Amino acid sequence: MSTIAMPKPDARILAEAPQIIAALRDALPAGTVISDPEETRAYECDALTAYRCPPIAVVLPRTTEEVATAMRICQRFSVPVVPRGAGTSLAGGALPTADSVVIATIRLREILEIDTTNRFIRVQTGVTNLSVSAELEAEGFFYAPDPSSQLACTIAGNIAMNSGGAHCLKYGVTTNNLMGVRCVLTDGEIVEVGGPFMDSGGLDILGLLCGSEGQLAIVTEATLRIVPKPEDARPMLIGFDSAETAGECVARIIRSGLIPVAIEYMDDVCLRAIEAFAKTDYPKCAAVLIVEVEGSQGEIAHQIERIREIADELSPVEFRSSRNKDESLAIWKGRKSAFGAMGRLGDYLCLDGTVPVSKLPYTLKRIGELSKHYGLEVANVFHAGDGNMHPLILFNANAPGELERAEAYGADILRLCVDVGGCLTGEHGVGIEKRDLMSKQYSAEDMAIQMDIKDVFDPDWLLNPAKVFPLDVSQPYRDRASRS
Amino acid sequence: MSTIAMPKPDARILAEAPQIIAALRDALPAGTVISDPEETRAYECDALTAYRCPPIAVVLPRTTEEVATAMRICQRFSVPVVPRGAGTSLAGGALPTADSVVIATIRLREILEIDTTNRFIRVQTGVTNLSVSAELEAEGFFYAPDPSSQLACTIAGNIAMNSGGAHCLKYGVTTNNLMGVRCVLTDGEIVEVGGPFMDSGGLDILGLLCGSEGQLAIVTEATLRIVPKPEDARPMLIGFDSAETAGECVARIIRSGLIPVAIEYMDDVCLRAIEAFAKTDYPKCAAVLIVEVEGSQGEIAHQIERIREIADELSPVEFRSSRNKDESLAIWKGRKSAFGAMGRLGDYLCLDGTVPVSKLPYTLKRIGELSKHYGLEVANVFHAGDGNMHPLILFNANAPGELERAEAYGADILRLCVDVGGCLTGEHGVGIEKRDLMSKQYSAEDMAIQMDIKDVFDPDWLLNPAKVFPLDVSQPYRDRASRS
Repeated sequence: MSTIAMPKPDARILAEAPQIIAALRDALPAGTVISDPEETRAYECDALTAYRCPPIAVVLPRTTEEVATAMRICQRFSVPVVPRGAGTSLAGGALPTADSVVIATIRLREILEIDTTNRFIRVQTGVTNLSVSAELEAEGFFYAPDPSSQLACTIAGNIAMNSGGAHCLKYGVTTNNLMGVRCVLTDGEIVEVGGPFMDSGGLDILGLLCGSEGQLAIVTEATLRIVPKPEDARPMLIGFDSAETAGECVARIIRSGLIPVAIEYMDDVCLRAIEAFAKTDYPKCAAVLIVEVEGSQGEIAHQIERIREIADELSPVEFRSSRNKDESLAIWKGRKSAFGAMGRLGDYLCLDGTVPVSKLPYTLKRIGELSKHYGLEVANVFHAGDGNMHPLILFNANAPGELERAEAYGADILRLCVDVGGCLTGEHGVGIEKRDLMSKQYSAEDMAIQMDIKDVFDPDWLLNPAKVFPLDVSQPYRDRASRS
Repeated sequence: MSTIAMPKPDARILAEAPQIIAALRDALPAGTVISDPEETRAYECDALTAYRCPPIAVVLPRTTEEVATAMRICQRFSVPVVPRGAGTSLAGGALPTADSVVIATIRLREILEIDTTNRFIRVQTGVTNLSVSAELEAEGFFYAPDPSSQLACTIAGNIAMNSGGAHCLKYGVTTNNLMGVRCVLTDGEIVEVGGPFMDSGGLDILGLLCGSEGQLAIVTEATLRIVPKPEDARPMLIGFDSAETAGECVARIIRSGLIPVAIEYMDDVCLRAIEAFAKTDYPKCAAVLIVEVEGSQGEIAHQIERIREIADELSPVEFRSSRNKDESLAIWKGRKSAFGAMGRLGDYLCLDGTVPVSKLPYTLKRIGELSKHYGLEVANVFHAGDGNMHPLILFNANAPGELERAEAYGADILRLCVDVGGCLTGEHGVGIEKRDLMSKQYSAEDMAIQMDIKDVFDPDWLLNPAKVFPLDVSQPYRDRASRS
């Protein structure tokens, strides 16, 4: 049992499923369309596994033109399309409906062009985030946004969700690193937007596509900005005996004008889970920060010195800076294993609310109070430098009512984030998970503008159904679309 | 005589002008509405002075609510509204039509909030670009985008045009430094978008507003990201005996992975003009680069050393790096006076085409060839690091036919930029100047999407008439709007 409502599947589409599948099969190369329930099972959910639904069929194109062919057929049958990257969305961004066709980008795997002079790489969007940086390694460049799922997640998904990552404090999120796309509109038209140059005049369609969660188009190729690798990077580990002091330390580092590459925060629940899972020598305390700086050796030494001064004023229980590669790995080891460690404690919901950095101490305190109220444990492990919190609510999926309680607690945390001047999502997107909270963040007027824009790109409301916009709010648009 | 067509003013509006002015006067504080031709003259053009037209009236509000009141009245009378900052647009972005009301933001001058912990400043958008950084000086922060007109231009104009500047190579343009806005829609509704936090889910309306050239809304308040001032910054001057070699040096610096704050390029025509105007000791050669690096002293020394190595391989006629503040000022002096120096040579059109960095040498060569073809001299002075060219076409406005010839030459240069994989505008916007070239950059499908989005925000097509979209292309939209 779960609490997020999905619309009733369209009986007309279910009845026409055999013809839809046949039309897709006829138009596309063998092996591109799968509809056997055994095979489509892998696509019935993403990383928000509490919600599952098999689609009518899954299309796995290898070219932009094949995506366009599939889109044209889906439009002809008025069948909803769920775009999908690697399916690592934590927000249910790629959850199918029973009356939908999934178009996945995972076979769009070509690296099309690397140009270090003009500082871009052009790829098909089914390539994984990490393999983009791997391609650039020999040239001394990398692609900056680095979601935790970077080994699996695709550029298509990164663009859809405007993904971030630990490096984004310094380098910005996906939208700051995306220069151009090739995409397929709902009528099968192929459009190029942007390219390897600055701002190009007219309305910023590229910015609009980035983070649009598959509501506007399917992006099949992307031109990504690449960044030179720094000479070196070194982490520090700073332990505090109170969450509030750790939050204050983050605020003071940011205020000082330093720009570390990453400031990661782990609380005591998280630290205990890590301790039980991976052997680390993290201090036993209320909160640990990992602060990483980069640059030349001189610059690194200078930044470490300044951060040590800032931390010292707050009497940390431990301050340790890495002196070599092994020590760096040891400092990062626990943080990197945090989500795995947490998984061993049971099921969890991973939230993504974001708050102004100065509100971190207060928000952490309130999350703790709410934890007692709901009787559910919470672990906090997140990108503190930009206020992007990832509270993990621990629950037992087999205990009746616990998922619902966890979801209610999660919703309260996200409302809290908005109330202190933050927002619902920093990097995971809205998906189905935060859909019904959108009215908390946006005024009716603002949401109407967003849906009017969706209407421009997708007048039939076929793309990625039941995501982003609350069902009641989008009802008039969907009614109008189905009548036209 | 000039070549860019403007639509015929609406006789109905001209006839109703007295009532429109009276309604605005009634609703707004004394002194807010001016309509005396002597007073409105200052608003009849922007920095594209070849085009002039007095509006019906100019409204100078002091609050967002006053902007909303003016917008509601203009909507009631179906009168076009021209939003205006300081009027420094080089693209005619704030040119009135005879049947329009100008709403200028220059009296919206309040600094609302400075928050160094959360790294933002919130301002009314009539504050000038430079005064934002001046407000932050004592705190050790600054606002990065720095258009050449920064002493005069307003944040409202910067947002409308997505302005750049010399520092943007490192820090990005306006859209990368804008966190939120408060704006007024055509129906007078006041909407808040974004705020002092990361990405907030839903469609990226903030990105859409930035660079929309007053086509969607009037932005009255802005939350801007602020950046810590580096410890120091130092320029180098590098002279070459060929434009091509200078272009190659830019490409090699970028490819090396270094990120200077600025790479500015000046060609021989520009250098001669500067020499006659300001006493500098620039070398007499085909092209001079000014490359500025910043950071700690160690980092600066390290970057200068690497750039010297790169330059040395290309046998520069001179390589000079600043050793102190006076030498830095001396190196920048000529570049800072380039536009003034050029103005003394006669009238000029300043273009804004942008090309991939690797295409700079070829593009410069073609611009030179076209200069001979049109019989008009051209000076090149521009932000080379991001390929944002500013060819200045010199002409005599009093010689019959020369403006038309200069505009034709300019259009050819912009077509060339698009042909080599670049775009029409890097930071000045489309305005009226590049309006009729938009079809060169964008497909019909792409332009239709942009106009559909304009329709969402401004269904009556009242905002900033005759800009951005070619008149013939937007005709069906405007016809539909006037019928409704």
